[in-house]
Amino acid sequence: MINELNKVMELAYDAFQSYRHTSGSRKKEFLFAIADEIEALGDVLLETASRETHLPVVRFAGERARTCGQLRDFAHLVAEGSWVEAVIDTRIADRKPLPKPDMRKVAVPLGPILVFGASNFPLAYSTAGGDTASALAAGCPVVVKAHPSHPETSRLIAGAITKAVTKCQLHAGVFQHVEGNSFEVGKILTQHPLTAGVGFTGSLSGGRAIYDYAAHRESPIPVFAEMGSTNPVILFKDALIHRAPEIAKQFAASITIGVGQFCTNPGIMIGIKSSVLNHFTSLLALELSMVPAYRMLHEGIHKNYLEGLDKVLYDKGVETVYHAHAAGDLVASPVLARVKADTFMKNPDLHHEIFGPFSLIVVCDNKQQLCEVWESLKGQLTTTLIATDHDLQSHPDLAEKAVNIAGRIVFNSVPTGVEVSNATVHGGPYPATTDQRFTSVGMEAVKRWVRPLCYQDCPGFLLPDELKDDNPLGILRKVNGNYTRDPLG
Amino acid sequence: MINELNKVMELAYDAFQSYRHTSGSRKKEFLFAIADEIEALGDVLLETASRETHLPVVRFAGERARTCGQLRDFAHLVAEGSWVEAVIDTRIADRKPLPKPDMRKVAVPLGPILVFGASNFPLAYSTAGGDTASALAAGCPVVVKAHPSHPETSRLIAGAITKAVTKCQLHAGVFQHVEGNSFEVGKILTQHPLTAGVGFTGSLSGGRAIYDYAAHRESPIPVFAEMGSTNPVILFKDALIHRAPEIAKQFAASITIGVGQFCTNPGIMIGIKSSVLNHFTSLLALELSMVPAYRMLHEGIHKNYLEGLDKVLYDKGVETVYHAHAAGDLVASPVLARVKADTFMKNPDLHHEIFGPFSLIVVCDNKQQLCEVWESLKGQLTTTLIATDHDLQSHPDLAEKAVNIAGRIVFNSVPTGVEVSNATVHGGPYPATTDQRFTSVGMEAVKRWVRPLCYQDCPGFLLPDELKDDNPLGILRKVNGNYTRDPLG
Repeated sequence: MINELNKVMELAYDAFQSYRHTSGSRKKEFLFAIADEIEALGDVLLETASRETHLPVVRFAGERARTCGQLRDFAHLVAEGSWVEAVIDTRIADRKPLPKPDMRKVAVPLGPILVFGASNFPLAYSTAGGDTASALAAGCPVVVKAHPSHPETSRLIAGAITKAVTKCQLHAGVFQHVEGNSFEVGKILTQHPLTAGVGFTGSLSGGRAIYDYAAHRESPIPVFAEMGSTNPVILFKDALIHRAPEIAKQFAASITIGVGQFCTNPGIMIGIKSSVLNHFTSLLALELSMVPAYRMLHEGIHKNYLEGLDKVLYDKGVETVYHAHAAGDLVASPVLARVKADTFMKNPDLHHEIFGPFSLIVVCDNKQQLCEVWESLKGQLTTTLIATDHDLQSHPDLAEKAVNIAGRIVFNSVPTGVEVSNATVHGGPYPATTDQRFTSVGMEAVKRWVRPLCYQDCPGFLLPDELKDDNPLGILRKVNGNYTRDPLG
Repeated sequence: MINELNKVMELAYDAFQSYRHTSGSRKKEFLFAIADEIEALGDVLLETASRETHLPVVRFAGERARTCGQLRDFAHLVAEGSWVEAVIDTRIADRKPLPKPDMRKVAVPLGPILVFGASNFPLAYSTAGGDTASALAAGCPVVVKAHPSHPETSRLIAGAITKAVTKCQLHAGVFQHVEGNSFEVGKILTQHPLTAGVGFTGSLSGGRAIYDYAAHRESPIPVFAEMGSTNPVILFKDALIHRAPEIAKQFAASITIGVGQFCTNPGIMIGIKSSVLNHFTSLLALELSMVPAYRMLHEGIHKNYLEGLDKVLYDKGVETVYHAHAAGDLVASPVLARVKADTFMKNPDLHHEIFGPFSLIVVCDNKQQLCEVWESLKGQLTTTLIATDHDLQSHPDLAEKAVNIAGRIVFNSVPTGVEVSNATVHGGPYPATTDQRFTSVGMEAVKRWVRPLCYQDCPGFLLPDELKDDNPLGILRKVNGNYTRDPLG
């Protein structure tokens, strides 16, 4: 096995030597070709993904659109070219005591990137997902360790990417697909000397293991592991008074979408005790009761869900508000529970993510306790405020608390459904991710796979296009402190 | 001790709650005040630093100018404000199937940053050095662990910063100064739950230890450790033919500046065997013989230098070209050695940095061997090409090799003397640093201490100024994919 994996990484490294120089416009063609090839797979892709995940076919029409959309978004980003953050400080010959040299900086790709796909998003967060798309956009070859819970889907996608590689006449090592159930494969690839970075989406235990493997290397490498969170929601009184039925409907859908198997699932909802909060809780339970129970992705996730529920629901301070008790192989019953804030604060088990269609309402005595609960939570991908302007103006300190704990603050909407945009942050303080300075969704995700390189007094003919005097790519650059697309001089 | 350090970190965290909101213009006042207070210390600072480091007073006039200059440069950066990389994607109400929410991203500070100063730059890379200046600019409180080899200098600088804190009426926890010889202090502070990031400049063993402490935390934090390198220089024939005497003079100065105690010291010089390379070697030896021997910073560094030399010079394949054999307490004799490429390739000891006034000329049989030697080197802060345009045009592949190994590529100059500019990269692949995606010198150093935060559908009155519709700060923002300083609408 080691020999085989060595060959994979050597091929990826070999590919890097040419792929790193691929122009933005060629990378655009390549990323478009991948999207085209994925779409050309037709319904068989959707049906295969559905069969392997127990999620409905229609869901994969949406996920495919997202996957191809983000490939094309990254294509436009690198074709435009300003993403490399070129900075130029020109020579000052008469500076005393010494002349100031000409210094020019540009982002360059790190090298072969290892991607671990997520079981819950076999298209958008896996083989051709955001990690792969952003790494290829950056100029890094990608080695995907296929998720063992959707091997056929992963193979189909890998085949589409390989076709695009051939069509665009790129090096065969630009994309490689490694299968295997053994955790050892992931460890060996993470610790391989030619691996330059890792993208991971999955559980806290899995992500932390990968992070630790990387940290124990002789040469540590960046690992961006997105490991989910409880995505706390703060429910304000005025909002509940005005919109409880609508909010209940939205959140019932958000808690159960994808059988609750979203890393942005709202697992904890916090409010101050009141009749309107009670009313909302009843409405939410009612809405949940109208959602059918579905099968989860695989046995491991289902077992973890049941065990997680057991831990929480047997706590004598926790009240089960709604429990569907649906039966069937791998079927997950939606569950809504409620707990008083002081019980919640005392029991760390209640702070952990329960991956599945579950949410816990935490009832606080007053605002001070609500703040304490919120502050007690660990790092999150998102936190959501359900609040009218009146609520927010009455509590100007609360947005501040939101800033402290999460990468994205959502106002009056649900945290599930992460937009792919220029401004997206799908990241956050640990344990949401292993490096809160980056995001795995949206255009900024490309920054994980590059490093800055500085040319000092470099002759013009050796400079990369991004740094040439005449700015042949027409990109935005910071020149002597000013942002401009103009050529120098 | 633990109680004391707890109090330090709690005070820093408390300060963070207000300091994070300090406007760019107030941070500018503060950074200027620090520079002013450092200058106000007058000659006593220079004399103290000189006494504690055995380096000449005049050197500290220059280092003070650099230190105050970079504080003011960061001040201008944050006062201008565009460094936060604001990105806005506005709402698309009629998008199908769902409206596209309004998403706005801005950089926010990480939290209290721990800074380990360097023994070799008590001003520019220590208490008020680049790590401190960039973290304060980012909006992060700083805790400096003073370097035990220049305690008085560190205290003087800490006093100046504290005066500036008071003058600007900032929270007392914005800057704190911790002393102590025990390595345990650094470990406890690195692993403290309230520490959000670490900046380190020093040895590979020290930097790696700090990195490992951080990686073993329950919540890992970013560590940027700059650990030095051998800064390989490639000597081309045409350049040597035309400029050997001048190059020899420049490099003799570069090898011995600061008694060789620069992380960018040119420790390895690589060329192809020729009479002109021999001539250059003789000239370099001659130039070195005219440099007096000086005392090193402290006993530990001196001992390491002697041991490093012993390891290298007793290798029977290594020829000592020049060895000053100066005597005296802590005195370091400049040394120039020469080795054939095949011997060099076989002995890993010859690849290690020898911190002091030492350089090793590696003589290759031909260009292929030169490339092999260059590629065999580990990650570097810099690599330098001494080459005419003719040399470079004859070997178009060589700039490529340079890109692979270093953070900065210098053409026809010495690697020592790192400009503080917008385009500076003082970073590089491991073991030069622990994260090649960042720099510790230049304006981009501020990026180490921030994370992106996304506001989704946030009411205007709650948005930070950087993201408000009317762009009150007038900063450059990426709005719906286009860079502009215009208000929205």
